[in-house]
Amino acid sequence: MRKRKFWGWGYADELLSAEEEKNIDSRIAKTFKLDEVETLPIPDIKDIELPESSLLVPKNLRDIMSDDKEERLNHTYGKSFPDAARSVLKDFSSPPDFVAFPNTEEELINVMDWCDEKNIAVIPYGGGSSVCGGVETQVGDSYSGVISLDLRNLNQVIEIDRESRSARIQAGILGPDLEAILKKENLTLRHYPQSFEFSTLGGWIATRSGGHFATLYTHIDDFVESTRMVTPSGLLESRRLPGSGAGPSPDRLTIGSEGILGVITEASMRLQDRPTFRSSCSVEFTNYKNALNALRRISQSGLFPANCRLLDSNEALMNGAGDGSNHILILGFESADHDKSAALKRALDICSDNDGLYEEPDSNKQDAHRTGSSGNWRNSFIKAPYFRESFTRRGIIQDTFETSITWERAHSFIEEIKTDISKAIEKISGKPSLVTCRITHSYPDGLAPYFTFAAFAKTSTMIDVWREIKLATNEICISKGGTVTHHHAVGRDHRPNGYDNQRPELFKEILTAAKSRVDPNGIMNPGVLIDPENKNIYNWLK
Amino acid sequence: MRKRKFWGWGYADELLSAEEEKNIDSRIAKTFKLDEVETLPIPDIKDIELPESSLLVPKNLRDIMSDDKEERLNHTYGKSFPDAARSVLKDFSSPPDFVAFPNTEEELINVMDWCDEKNIAVIPYGGGSSVCGGVETQVGDSYSGVISLDLRNLNQVIEIDRESRSARIQAGILGPDLEAILKKENLTLRHYPQSFEFSTLGGWIATRSGGHFATLYTHIDDFVESTRMVTPSGLLESRRLPGSGAGPSPDRLTIGSEGILGVITEASMRLQDRPTFRSSCSVEFTNYKNALNALRRISQSGLFPANCRLLDSNEALMNGAGDGSNHILILGFESADHDKSAALKRALDICSDNDGLYEEPDSNKQDAHRTGSSGNWRNSFIKAPYFRESFTRRGIIQDTFETSITWERAHSFIEEIKTDISKAIEKISGKPSLVTCRITHSYPDGLAPYFTFAAFAKTSTMIDVWREIKLATNEICISKGGTVTHHHAVGRDHRPNGYDNQRPELFKEILTAAKSRVDPNGIMNPGVLIDPENKNIYNWLK
Repeated sequence: MRKRKFWGWGYADELLSAEEEKNIDSRIAKTFKLDEVETLPIPDIKDIELPESSLLVPKNLRDIMSDDKEERLNHTYGKSFPDAARSVLKDFSSPPDFVAFPNTEEELINVMDWCDEKNIAVIPYGGGSSVCGGVETQVGDSYSGVISLDLRNLNQVIEIDRESRSARIQAGILGPDLEAILKKENLTLRHYPQSFEFSTLGGWIATRSGGHFATLYTHIDDFVESTRMVTPSGLLESRRLPGSGAGPSPDRLTIGSEGILGVITEASMRLQDRPTFRSSCSVEFTNYKNALNALRRISQSGLFPANCRLLDSNEALMNGAGDGSNHILILGFESADHDKSAALKRALDICSDNDGLYEEPDSNKQDAHRTGSSGNWRNSFIKAPYFRESFTRRGIIQDTFETSITWERAHSFIEEIKTDISKAIEKISGKPSLVTCRITHSYPDGLAPYFTFAAFAKTSTMIDVWREIKLATNEICISKGGTVTHHHAVGRDHRPNGYDNQRPELFKEILTAAKSRVDPNGIMNPGVLIDPENKNIYNWLK
Repeated sequence: MRKRKFWGWGYADELLSAEEEKNIDSRIAKTFKLDEVETLPIPDIKDIELPESSLLVPKNLRDIMSDDKEERLNHTYGKSFPDAARSVLKDFSSPPDFVAFPNTEEELINVMDWCDEKNIAVIPYGGGSSVCGGVETQVGDSYSGVISLDLRNLNQVIEIDRESRSARIQAGILGPDLEAILKKENLTLRHYPQSFEFSTLGGWIATRSGGHFATLYTHIDDFVESTRMVTPSGLLESRRLPGSGAGPSPDRLTIGSEGILGVITEASMRLQDRPTFRSSCSVEFTNYKNALNALRRISQSGLFPANCRLLDSNEALMNGAGDGSNHILILGFESADHDKSAALKRALDICSDNDGLYEEPDSNKQDAHRTGSSGNWRNSFIKAPYFRESFTRRGIIQDTFETSITWERAHSFIEEIKTDISKAIEKISGKPSLVTCRITHSYPDGLAPYFTFAAFAKTSTMIDVWREIKLATNEICISKGGTVTHHHAVGRDHRPNGYDNQRPELFKEILTAAKSRVDPNGIMNPGVLIDPENKNIYNWLK
């Protein structure tokens, strides 16, 4: 197996080139007006000490439990900024006692039974790509230990139903492995979160992941036909149905439960035929209000573009999709059944009505989504996490946050967030920061803005600076009527100032009651979403 | 206020004509080979005795509580077959003690507080159109009384947001009243269940109602932006958001909760622009497998027809949409933004590929959905409940049941259900019965078949005969892998042999725990979906 980086994104052998690293230095020096840029080295596993596990693993579980140092390091954190920051600072004070790698659902149940009996916290782990503290093993002192439950060996496509375009799939499969298997049947799940390479089906479902489609099927939720979840009190499996009205949907409780009720082991997923018709175009707007208006009209038209992402001028500049003078709307239609050029034409007419400018799309250019503004954006999107970790080694916080809002509040909401968070970062970090925005998904009744910023800190202060900024971004999304997360999940990091104020108080009561019923000892992913009853849970952000 | 029929569908002054009644007699005589048809008279309110209420209403609630005899009769049952049957048999043995008509949410809360304190069961009542025992006031002997909580006075559109195409609406508004208000803004919810005239927004949400759109937006679920629910433990209100990934969706627990957690008092709903472009056509198939195949291919094409209903040949005959020799697919596209004739053409090409026959649609004929097969079907659909009650007065059970299934099982599922239920009815009732089928909604991964039958009984046996048939239809839908209801809700009638076996056992535990937390005394709609803890609930079907 190819080794993963325990301190950052991707595989251990995937590093930026010396030239790319040098470019980062000069970009940081220029942005923050610094004479020199201090850089922490890539941490060496030999320099890190881990506390020994005090748990005694029963005989029947020994083959599937690992206390290998690198595995424990790999499973201590997810991939958020503070996760990378603590890693390069060699702070691994709360690793899992063991990492479990069950090969079957039965083995997984055995692990959970043991943990339930011994009061050991269980952290479900898919690809480990959480950017909100969703897989962290620091759980406080109410447990006799903590294990990370890695689903990597439950990674099979069990059955494909070509007629219904549906497949029964194990939760631990990674994006590329899933797509490779589905491709043989000319099918695709077509769910491409930024983490695609290193995230799993189970993780997508547990966190309500947002993917490829900018309209209509924005979240993984829409592709879930049924789910199978192992809880400490047994199996919760729903029926495979295309649609139902029989009471509240059991799936819709499993979806987004972030491991607090149990571990998703399988799901039946709705698939797509692989698209053969593609029409795309980039449109430039000088006025942001006009751009939003065009986006709204397109989202309300019933045209359902697959790609419909609006980059503000600064975001376009940062990603090489524009020169910074205009806002850019990347529009793309796709179908496996029929030509979409008329749909694109209608969407472009809407853009024209709102003073959008574009070059006539070339209908023969089927790879347009991989070239031009669209292609630059795509490449930059995939590479972003690799760059981010190099910034982290220099104390610079490159981070994002995302939310959603209805149309009538959209313009002021976005402008105010950019201004207010920019000011907040200057106040917290002492240096100005540019906050840029892209719209990742849009709806007939609103849109999902995604903000990116870079904030100055030193490697010695970066974690504290980040924490203050996180509390500020959580707070602003909630106080202005948005959600604390549109598709990154809640985890532990979005709770203070955020989810804890967003969710209806009675819904917390309901979730807590549900959890107490299926996880009476509160061992499942403690501190994520809600606190289990009768436990003292630690949240380092509070 | 125009009076409603307490014993059947619609307004008290809406009766079939003498000729229509005569036609029913001869149709019954012919179908069941009878010499004469016994008919119960329309019940007279004077001939019905009601037990007196023993509840003492506190002073502050007296203005909004009614023990008017007709109101109590009106609120004893919904509109299922046994509801009409018991009504024409003058069996009103378990009426509500009082009917509450709160004018404000505050008054509604006062009513619920009183009921909670006094252990009085509360049956939320919207339009009262339930066909599954959802609003019945017979709750067993664990309560000191029972009230029907009628939302009719909470019927305002509070706010319309034209830009987001969304409105905040009180739950008690009836379909026609809502559409009349929205029409002024050129908007529509475009949710037309068969009960449209006599059902409410709150009822649609509480029961996961299925409406106008045959694909894509099949259930009311998809139009809910946020909900507000009064529970015995307080308010549960979600945020108005176009989309979110912040934990399991609170709305998706409210939607389909059928009054067991609380009463929905308001919702923000996603609206549509009123369509101006329409393209429709009817297609005939001689082979049912081909028809299903065409339907599947259209449902997987991404074309998203608004209307896409397949009537089997017998169903087409019954509804005047065909002569009984062919299966008929009614196809319709609509848009407020762009012409849909290319979409219709592509769908018709798919039909041709599957040996479907049609006349070229006339693109100038904008009212095609109101004429021809499509129009006949539409009229028959709206009139059906009026005819049904006249059959009931003759002991004849005209009833329907509906389910859903994935495509790979669809053909055998539908054929087996038609055959098996036909046989079951013959065995139960002593006379043969034809079971017909229409597909009301379809999905990329499956479809929702809706079955209609007429079964022979005498007015003295009709309730027992119906009960046996209901248990048989519940059982067959579940044992063959379907759902016990695709959009009629669970209520009390779909539980035995049905929902009680369908829902995952742990999900029942979760729902029960949730209910215990928000409704600790178990007063809310007892016996619907699940039984509350520590109460002895009566279900007359078991």
